[in-house]
Amino acid sequence: MSKVHNFSAGPCILPPEVLKGAADAVGQFNDLNLSLIEVSHRGKDFIAVAEKAVGLVKELLEVPEGYSVMYLQGGASLQFLMTPYNFLKEGGTAAYTNTGTWAKKAIKEAKLFGNIEVVASSEDRNHTYIPKGYTIPENADYFHITSNNTIYGTQVMEFPETSVPIICDMSSDIFSKKIDVSKFDVIYAGAQKNMGTAGATLAIVKDSFMESSGRAIPSMLNYKIHASKESMFNTPPVFAIYVSMLMLQWMKDIGGVEKIAEMNKAKAELMYGEIDRNSMFKAVVDVEDRSEMNATFVLNDDSKQDEFNAMWTAANISGIKGHRDVGGYRASMYNALPIESVQVLVDVMKEFESKNA
Amino acid sequence: MSKVHNFSAGPCILPPEVLKGAADAVGQFNDLNLSLIEVSHRGKDFIAVAEKAVGLVKELLEVPEGYSVMYLQGGASLQFLMTPYNFLKEGGTAAYTNTGTWAKKAIKEAKLFGNIEVVASSEDRNHTYIPKGYTIPENADYFHITSNNTIYGTQVMEFPETSVPIICDMSSDIFSKKIDVSKFDVIYAGAQKNMGTAGATLAIVKDSFMESSGRAIPSMLNYKIHASKESMFNTPPVFAIYVSMLMLQWMKDIGGVEKIAEMNKAKAELMYGEIDRNSMFKAVVDVEDRSEMNATFVLNDDSKQDEFNAMWTAANISGIKGHRDVGGYRASMYNALPIESVQVLVDVMKEFESKNA
Repeated sequence: MSKVHNFSAGPCILPPEVLKGAADAVGQFNDLNLSLIEVSHRGKDFIAVAEKAVGLVKELLEVPEGYSVMYLQGGASLQFLMTPYNFLKEGGTAAYTNTGTWAKKAIKEAKLFGNIEVVASSEDRNHTYIPKGYTIPENADYFHITSNNTIYGTQVMEFPETSVPIICDMSSDIFSKKIDVSKFDVIYAGAQKNMGTAGATLAIVKDSFMESSGRAIPSMLNYKIHASKESMFNTPPVFAIYVSMLMLQWMKDIGGVEKIAEMNKAKAELMYGEIDRNSMFKAVVDVEDRSEMNATFVLNDDSKQDEFNAMWTAANISGIKGHRDVGGYRASMYNALPIESVQVLVDVMKEFESKNA
Repeated sequence: MSKVHNFSAGPCILPPEVLKGAADAVGQFNDLNLSLIEVSHRGKDFIAVAEKAVGLVKELLEVPEGYSVMYLQGGASLQFLMTPYNFLKEGGTAAYTNTGTWAKKAIKEAKLFGNIEVVASSEDRNHTYIPKGYTIPENADYFHITSNNTIYGTQVMEFPETSVPIICDMSSDIFSKKIDVSKFDVIYAGAQKNMGTAGATLAIVKDSFMESSGRAIPSMLNYKIHASKESMFNTPPVFAIYVSMLMLQWMKDIGGVEKIAEMNKAKAELMYGEIDRNSMFKAVVDVEDRSEMNATFVLNDDSKQDEFNAMWTAANISGIKGHRDVGGYRASMYNALPIESVQVLVDVMKEFESKNA
């Protein structure tokens, strides 16, 4: 079959080895003569998968002692309400940054639980930059930030220094580069970008921070319960955890997060280099805030849209139409996207420029 | 590979056609040259899958007008708290039946939201029967019941007549026989028994009942929002919905719920017939409340356990160890289990009796 260059924003490209491993396990799991998806999640074969996945998360991100790693369901959207439920005291205040659509959704859900202070926003320029130099109130129960904004193509390069516990939505850039987990009290991420497929959500929570809201938290929304049950409080999303385990193993095999970061940097440099050089396009986001995961760009002359679209479609490129809130184009370059695919897109952009010279 | 007779209580056996279809789609989805799990959930190919799944649910269960069918995440355990959040008024009362472990968990979560009146319980005899003839207070916001109790092997054969809205957890017997959906205001079910794999949860909710609690409900816990977004409020569990679609199609192809019910009845009759006939075993549950999904039974002489275990293991039977709360054995006979597997177990039981004659 012909190679598709999959720049989809998520669910997104996965390595061929991971797809093959996942398809194989659906056919036949270990030596059980059974499919992965028809065995008990409490049997030793699946327990080993779940433990391996959690172990790889700890290894790849160098998660320090005193943190629990768990797989949940519901995506980042469920985290938007679980975080205030678990960490925002009755009558308390939480500080949020508004850096785009997903941050706004997190703010909306948190407002049901207490006082939400938006300490920084990039709304004035349609979220094309990351706000800096803002103040986080010291009495806040926590500070919430979205590390990468898929729709707008911005990424936080440096997190603020604060004594307030930091909760970070890393759905779209986790495992893309090294992070210092100890700077965060909570990290969460939907798995379907850099670390697997839709249906599983990763949460890394500092043990001493758990249940700090003092609320009566329903069991399924309580991190402490999920942590104590090692992600098996109820039937976990077996297949999604298996795919995540394979993806983590793939990352380890190619050299870990440090190597992944190098690869992502090279892809982003190639992509943004061409956007900046090419007279037909311009980037959308401030240079210092450009996401290594999602490069957003627009045509200087919108009337050329059909011509450009026809060219990249012919080159077997898929998924680079921009989000409706931004328009233009978005090349998502998650961990599994090979630099060869970026090169194909860059070549199309060059050819498009030549034709229009 | 040698055939395994998979009596697992869930996740459980799926038809070979469904497993093959699922594995194929992970390798290659439609004619996209992409895997099912690396395409956008908002692309037309996956939207068609989600719509087909919902359409098949409506067709197979003859869901009347005025109900919404949606796929969610989090299993029945998330439904335990979503139901009071959406339907139990502040200061209101809900009526619950306590028919075992899962019912108790539902009660525990609901207690965080209001007054819970347990109107019937089978706890006095370790949940080996279904309580009958109880009264549901007319002022209750709703009445909650678990239709099938996997651990104990009991099943509700007749639901009480009441003017109070009925919420039913059908996780372990949905699609096993015809039901009159119009008698319920809410039906929910984890997919991993009769209708798919772990990671997706079905909810069927009467539109006029939605948001009746009057509470400010977080978006991810609000049925009305999920219904209005056609299960695409956020990234859905793509693979689990695909498997469910395949499983529903399989049920339709073999003749629909009526045919499935016939098959389940035949399996249950074969199984319980042997348990009752065989001098080595006895059934655990009152005759009229015996589940067609999960047959629980024990040895009359526990010292023969190792011998019997060795025999069924040698016959390639898997998953019939009873739950730790009941002991003994449990043969789960979900929709995809062929009667041939039940026959193999029955033959082993007969042989075991002969050997001990």
